[in-house]
Amino acid sequence: MRILGVDPGLTRCGLGVIDSRPARTAELVAVDVVRTPAGDSVDVRLGALAEAFDTWLDEHRPDVVSIERVFARNDVSTIMGTAQVSGLTMGLAARRGIPVAMHTPSEVKAAITGSGRADKKQMTRMVTRILRLDAPPTPADAADALALAICHLWRGATAATSTPGPTKDLLARQAATRQGAGLTRAQEQWAAALRSSRR
Amino acid sequence: MRILGVDPGLTRCGLGVIDSRPARTAELVAVDVVRTPAGDSVDVRLGALAEAFDTWLDEHRPDVVSIERVFARNDVSTIMGTAQVSGLTMGLAARRGIPVAMHTPSEVKAAITGSGRADKKQMTRMVTRILRLDAPPTPADAADALALAICHLWRGATAATSTPGPTKDLLARQAATRQGAGLTRAQEQWAAALRSSRR
Repeated sequence: MRILGVDPGLTRCGLGVIDSRPARTAELVAVDVVRTPAGDSVDVRLGALAEAFDTWLDEHRPDVVSIERVFARNDVSTIMGTAQVSGLTMGLAARRGIPVAMHTPSEVKAAITGSGRADKKQMTRMVTRILRLDAPPTPADAADALALAICHLWRGATAATSTPGPTKDLLARQAATRQGAGLTRAQEQWAAALRSSRR
Repeated sequence: MRILGVDPGLTRCGLGVIDSRPARTAELVAVDVVRTPAGDSVDVRLGALAEAFDTWLDEHRPDVVSIERVFARNDVSTIMGTAQVSGLTMGLAARRGIPVAMHTPSEVKAAITGSGRADKKQMTRMVTRILRLDAPPTPADAADALALAICHLWRGATAATSTPGPTKDLLARQAATRQGAGLTRAQEQWAAALRSSRR
């Protein structure tokens, strides 16, 4: 299963693609952070992001898109931009029939490090380890998009959207993936990796 | 000049197209409200809206898109959906190089009725009058999208987005439109229409 993780933002939009591998491992396919100039108007920035996102969907053909779930925060201007980008990417994926799943930041942190309060450094270290990279992913803020993709690989079945058609397919595909990979053995390996990362 | 007004919303998204005519008048081209089922997941609803909006851009080829500017309100769940839809439509228009302008609800009300606090009934009556319709536009909640388009025709030059390239073209086009139409005579007619509607 190929997963595209999206860390939505107007100024920086993280995109990360992984392929799931046997034994609950995953492989990095592509990662980048799309930036749009703060001096441009919001519509032009959203247009540029639409182009970039559709290009990624064309090139990488993900089976599912995993997007950070946006919540109300104090800074309304930030949340508006994030909501606009998430709406844009969700609409572009869904119109192609690609299932979209949403995960909160704390769900992602818990899935990747075992703690919902992990800091950026811990997250980057675990993402680097899980994808067996020689060095942390670059740019530095690209790890979040990969973490969203990995998170979906791990908790997708329970956190998937309520999408009637596509999600049912997704759940079936995820169940098949788990069966093939041998969940118990994989879970053991994962727990070992987690223990190792906390040393 | 052809203007597409967008009243963004997940449950109901109003779309209204008008053509500007000499003497600051306007003609209805098309109007509808796109609805998505509340039971569907947000991504599927956004995907359906993306399809509908792109179809309108294809069919009507507007010179400019006028979207309601979303502000923070008390109901966070509502504003999130509205922000997602506005982000989606802005991105889809901008990627085609179509200028996007934003107007607040009170700007629209003031432009259409002369009062920023006009009620729905007054708005519908003025929209019906301005477009010289035999009956109020249907569906009933479609008038807002047309009002956004008319508002842009009237205050577009001052309220346009900061889009560097497209907006400059837009401003030039609007200036040309005004010059051709004879602003003073048109303004008189408009004022007369306003007076008439307040009787």
